[in-house]
Amino acid sequence: MVIEAISPELDGGQIPIKRTLRERVVVEADVFGDGHDQVACALLWRATAKGEWQRAPMRPLVNDRWRGSFSVTSLGLYQYTIEGWVDHFRTWRADLRKRVDAGQDVDVELRAGAELVAAAAERAAGPGPGAGADPAATEGGSAAAAQLRRAALLLASAGTPAGERIAAALDEALSTLMAAHPDLRDASRYGRELAVTVDRELARFSAWYELFPRSTSGVAGRHGTFADVEKMLPYVGGMGFDILYMPPIHPIGRTFRKGPNNSLDPRPEDPGSPWAIGNETGGHTAIHPELGTPAQFRHLVKVARERKLEIALDIAFQASPDHPWVTEHPSWFKHRPDGAIRYAENPPKKYQDIYPFDFESEDWRGLWEGLKGVFEHWAGEGVRVFRVDNPHTKPFGFWAWLIPELRRQWPELIFLAEAFTRPKVMYRLAKLGFTQSYTYFAWRNLKWELEEYFTELTRTNLVDYFRPSLWPNTPDILTEPLQQGTRATFIARLVLAGTLGASYGVYGPAFELMEHLPREHGGEEYLASEKYEIRAWDLARADSLAPLLARLNRIRRENPALQHNRSLQFHRIDNDRLIAYSKRSVGGVPVEPALSPEAAAARRDEMKASGGRGAAPATRRPEPDNLVLVVVNLDREATHSGWLDLPLQELGLDPSRPYELHDLLADAHYTWNGHWNYVELNPHLLPAHVFRVEQQR
Amino acid sequence: MVIEAISPELDGGQIPIKRTLRERVVVEADVFGDGHDQVACALLWRATAKGEWQRAPMRPLVNDRWRGSFSVTSLGLYQYTIEGWVDHFRTWRADLRKRVDAGQDVDVELRAGAELVAAAAERAAGPGPGAGADPAATEGGSAAAAQLRRAALLLASAGTPAGERIAAALDEALSTLMAAHPDLRDASRYGRELAVTVDRELARFSAWYELFPRSTSGVAGRHGTFADVEKMLPYVGGMGFDILYMPPIHPIGRTFRKGPNNSLDPRPEDPGSPWAIGNETGGHTAIHPELGTPAQFRHLVKVARERKLEIALDIAFQASPDHPWVTEHPSWFKHRPDGAIRYAENPPKKYQDIYPFDFESEDWRGLWEGLKGVFEHWAGEGVRVFRVDNPHTKPFGFWAWLIPELRRQWPELIFLAEAFTRPKVMYRLAKLGFTQSYTYFAWRNLKWELEEYFTELTRTNLVDYFRPSLWPNTPDILTEPLQQGTRATFIARLVLAGTLGASYGVYGPAFELMEHLPREHGGEEYLASEKYEIRAWDLARADSLAPLLARLNRIRRENPALQHNRSLQFHRIDNDRLIAYSKRSVGGVPVEPALSPEAAAARRDEMKASGGRGAAPATRRPEPDNLVLVVVNLDREATHSGWLDLPLQELGLDPSRPYELHDLLADAHYTWNGHWNYVELNPHLLPAHVFRVEQQR
Repeated sequence: MVIEAISPELDGGQIPIKRTLRERVVVEADVFGDGHDQVACALLWRATAKGEWQRAPMRPLVNDRWRGSFSVTSLGLYQYTIEGWVDHFRTWRADLRKRVDAGQDVDVELRAGAELVAAAAERAAGPGPGAGADPAATEGGSAAAAQLRRAALLLASAGTPAGERIAAALDEALSTLMAAHPDLRDASRYGRELAVTVDRELARFSAWYELFPRSTSGVAGRHGTFADVEKMLPYVGGMGFDILYMPPIHPIGRTFRKGPNNSLDPRPEDPGSPWAIGNETGGHTAIHPELGTPAQFRHLVKVARERKLEIALDIAFQASPDHPWVTEHPSWFKHRPDGAIRYAENPPKKYQDIYPFDFESEDWRGLWEGLKGVFEHWAGEGVRVFRVDNPHTKPFGFWAWLIPELRRQWPELIFLAEAFTRPKVMYRLAKLGFTQSYTYFAWRNLKWELEEYFTELTRTNLVDYFRPSLWPNTPDILTEPLQQGTRATFIARLVLAGTLGASYGVYGPAFELMEHLPREHGGEEYLASEKYEIRAWDLARADSLAPLLARLNRIRRENPALQHNRSLQFHRIDNDRLIAYSKRSVGGVPVEPALSPEAAAARRDEMKASGGRGAAPATRRPEPDNLVLVVVNLDREATHSGWLDLPLQELGLDPSRPYELHDLLADAHYTWNGHWNYVELNPHLLPAHVFRVEQQR
Repeated sequence: MVIEAISPELDGGQIPIKRTLRERVVVEADVFGDGHDQVACALLWRATAKGEWQRAPMRPLVNDRWRGSFSVTSLGLYQYTIEGWVDHFRTWRADLRKRVDAGQDVDVELRAGAELVAAAAERAAGPGPGAGADPAATEGGSAAAAQLRRAALLLASAGTPAGERIAAALDEALSTLMAAHPDLRDASRYGRELAVTVDRELARFSAWYELFPRSTSGVAGRHGTFADVEKMLPYVGGMGFDILYMPPIHPIGRTFRKGPNNSLDPRPEDPGSPWAIGNETGGHTAIHPELGTPAQFRHLVKVARERKLEIALDIAFQASPDHPWVTEHPSWFKHRPDGAIRYAENPPKKYQDIYPFDFESEDWRGLWEGLKGVFEHWAGEGVRVFRVDNPHTKPFGFWAWLIPELRRQWPELIFLAEAFTRPKVMYRLAKLGFTQSYTYFAWRNLKWELEEYFTELTRTNLVDYFRPSLWPNTPDILTEPLQQGTRATFIARLVLAGTLGASYGVYGPAFELMEHLPREHGGEEYLASEKYEIRAWDLARADSLAPLLARLNRIRRENPALQHNRSLQFHRIDNDRLIAYSKRSVGGVPVEPALSPEAAAARRDEMKASGGRGAAPATRRPEPDNLVLVVVNLDREATHSGWLDLPLQELGLDPSRPYELHDLLADAHYTWNGHWNYVELNPHLLPAHVFRVEQQR
């Protein structure tokens, strides 16, 4: 028995796939044997915490490919594998039918079949010993056993007319019963147990809002507090965000402190960068005194949660020269020949305000445990979502150890990897356990760039482990298109982020207030960046994009299609400045795009080669449950129009009837006919359509 | 250090890839580490018989992908794997350059570099102990050691002007020397050793000619002999074939012998089917007396080899009821309840003249050894090429055991799998060790069918283990298009077989004499099939395709591009009845088609994402060494024309200059300009062009 080409399987089973609660895990494999015997197979799965294998039937597609599925209903790790066996009854039954059709005498065959059925009756009657035990042997088994025993007697009964015995042998109910009590004595198990990491839904579908808590007082120059952040909760929650994420909240170093705009000569009152962590009042588990107390922090976490907002913290593993660990654990840092601690460098740049940790120091165990303690401390304070700063500059082995350790205690933890580095390193971090990952989205602005990148993220096995988080801006990233300060660009980038990605985030209030001046030409740093100074924001500004953010987040919540990435499909539109794509779900389950023309043709070819053996793939429900179509004008100045080509049948629409489009952004209604339709977008009005598409039944 | 996504690697390294003598094995992998240290890696390889790992450098492509290669120069198994390590010197050198460019003082850095260089000098000087041993430490090592020592002294020399020390540090020669003496103490080895099966060239590039030896007397009704076959060698060799393959040559059973056209009532003089193996004169190691003696067989093998023709035998593991094993080893067969041996069945069909072996009998070891003995016997008689009948009806485990066992003694053996079954079973047999495989070619007649099937065979990892053998006909397969008996169809199918496939075969003389009458409408059996009767063929017939076969085989020998499948690329031509494709090699090495537009775009995307890190892929030689372009008219009646679109640059042609086409079939010459050109084919003249394409330098 050959069991191979299992999908999904990452790196030969070494890496778990990722799913969220209540998702179905659909598993396919090639299962076949030698000779002409028919085979059957089952998907075996278990929540590792429980240990007992469950069995789900697998059904044949075409060309020796089988599919089965199971749902994940608890957080943590699941396992799955596949078992295949020769189905002697089905083989016998198919041969019998051919002999009967050819008018042959089948008395001998019927008696052989009776033996197969009698053996199944034995299995149904009760649990046998060892591997031959019937998986379906329960109290209900005895009824099945009785039925099977009756059938065996009838098949073997020489006195009964042949026609009656044959009818009993070919009876569908008998087939079903036999399939439920297979002979697994010679079953083959796939050689590996594959793993699924099950996260909560927020891991897959989330809207992040980043803010600097010290800029929340609303008064220029006055340091914000957790109490001020609490006052902003109605604002942030009102826009529909799920996660409120704050840069490091720890005491800030004084040595080599940076002044406004990253200057090297700060005034005494300058607050410094929150990423220069630690001073005499504490390090990674302490709170900057001006923000508040631990009790106030816990209060913030609590009231935020009441508003369905989770507080996310930034974990940045580096220390200012004033961090308590510098004196308590000098061995946790690298040293120069003169004995001084080595500051961070990225030649020729020097970061004298930052000491990196030495993950390979003599006392690396102490350091690793200490860093784990940081997460444990904040998890103890109620934090369940962490944004991890620059994980790619720490050893892979550290994360591979740390994340599973932490998730064993808190399987609901979410880790967002802030690794803007080479793609394979980013993907590796996701494999090591990071729940979500920042992406190159900010630098994908042209149509072909977006199509290529998101095709890579959604149509390869990345979709099984790399969960992209799309950010139009961050405190470090003010892209050149945003620097133009054009409202259309902000809106277009927002719509792209929130509809291309089930998870996205913005750095606010800079985003909704369209903050756009760079510190210097050619760079991506904000002028007067909050990284180095306290800002006061006028949230009530008339041109704020806050209402639009609220609308977009509501659209995301009301349309399950937007809550996954798996169904993303780009559509042809004959204008390079217009990008069009859809997402679709049925009953909340994403509908993956049809096979590529090549793959579809290959499958057609395989079906012919196999003489059409195997059942056809399951047909889809004809009506779309939720279909969202997005069209964005990527030009901030000019109106663009184009003809959009939709694969209607693939999208579940009847091409012979009109269908309705409701633009959820503009609240406008359209009726379209056929697959070619005209679209026009004036960026000075709204640069995007977000249509819900429906068709009368 | 992460080493992953190795290519080629089949089934997680469980299955060897296949190559032939003197081919290069090109290996790619993703190799990267955490942090910003630069990495280096090497391809390790060895002929397993020798055991010593050799090292080949790998060079970076883009996006953390590395490539290296080695040549295989002996038959049997090779292994390869990859080793990666942090290249401290290259990391140091890159940082130094940045510091120098920024005008920083680098005295400390130069002294650190001197230590790295001094350590390399130690490694170069002589073999150290254990894993740190320098792979390049040979007699030549001492010169390198001296050079490195001098460089280390200069770098460390405080008295020397900084500029001089810096120049020495950044010197390319020093880099090369350092790369040759890497510090491998902390090198990571990829977790698996991957295997290559190395066959002789005939495994990859071969033309087979099948004939029934009993039909070679040239006289109707007179049984041919090996001596008659010898007389045909000039004919077969003259057409340029490499392999002369004969159906089973063993004594033929008498019980339930089949008459002409598979009839059940033979006359006493009917010869029976050669696949009903065995009678009182012997079984699988005996020779049918009317064909000749063992000595005459050995003589045939010898004189054939003198003409560069190899004799291939058909190994069909089944027995007639008269086979000696039926009485000697009754336990090797399945038995019915009444004790009689069970004949072959494919319900509702019964084959009473054939007893299958029971591979799972009590005495399966005895049977398996006995069957192995059959191959050993014929290998002992000088046979090195076997066509294996219906391998898919025997257990996978049998072949997985048998083929490596036999190849250990005779690594030059070639096994052609005659498994016309489901694709995955065919592919599995190739994975188990079959050297070549019959394909669905005979049933791929439309343009889209051919393009899809051969794209699957050449553009997926099948190209690394499944060697297709293309047969327009066999004694079992007279396809419907051939049944029309049209000369154009025979020629078109021949040209397709011999140019789409580096290996192909015909069943002759039926093929060149365009034998085309079926036994019955809707079937694929020949009327008056040689399977059941002796035929006499008029080889001198004026309309014979023999001259064309000779021409095609000469074209194949003279054009290395046709001796591989890896470079196959289909081209656009705006007529569905015309199919166009090319193969290309440079210096005998196949040039794989450029990446698909999607893959090319993805690579462009990756390059940007990685900030252009890594060297660009190697540029190709601008001039094609051997480029063969084939156009075939698939319509047997009508002349068809079309505009052909060639990707000139990809094919190594300068689009700005004309290029010459020599039609090697028709011996006609053309000059084309640009990428669009007109083609017209009249099937009544010749239904195909086989162009050699060249451009003046």
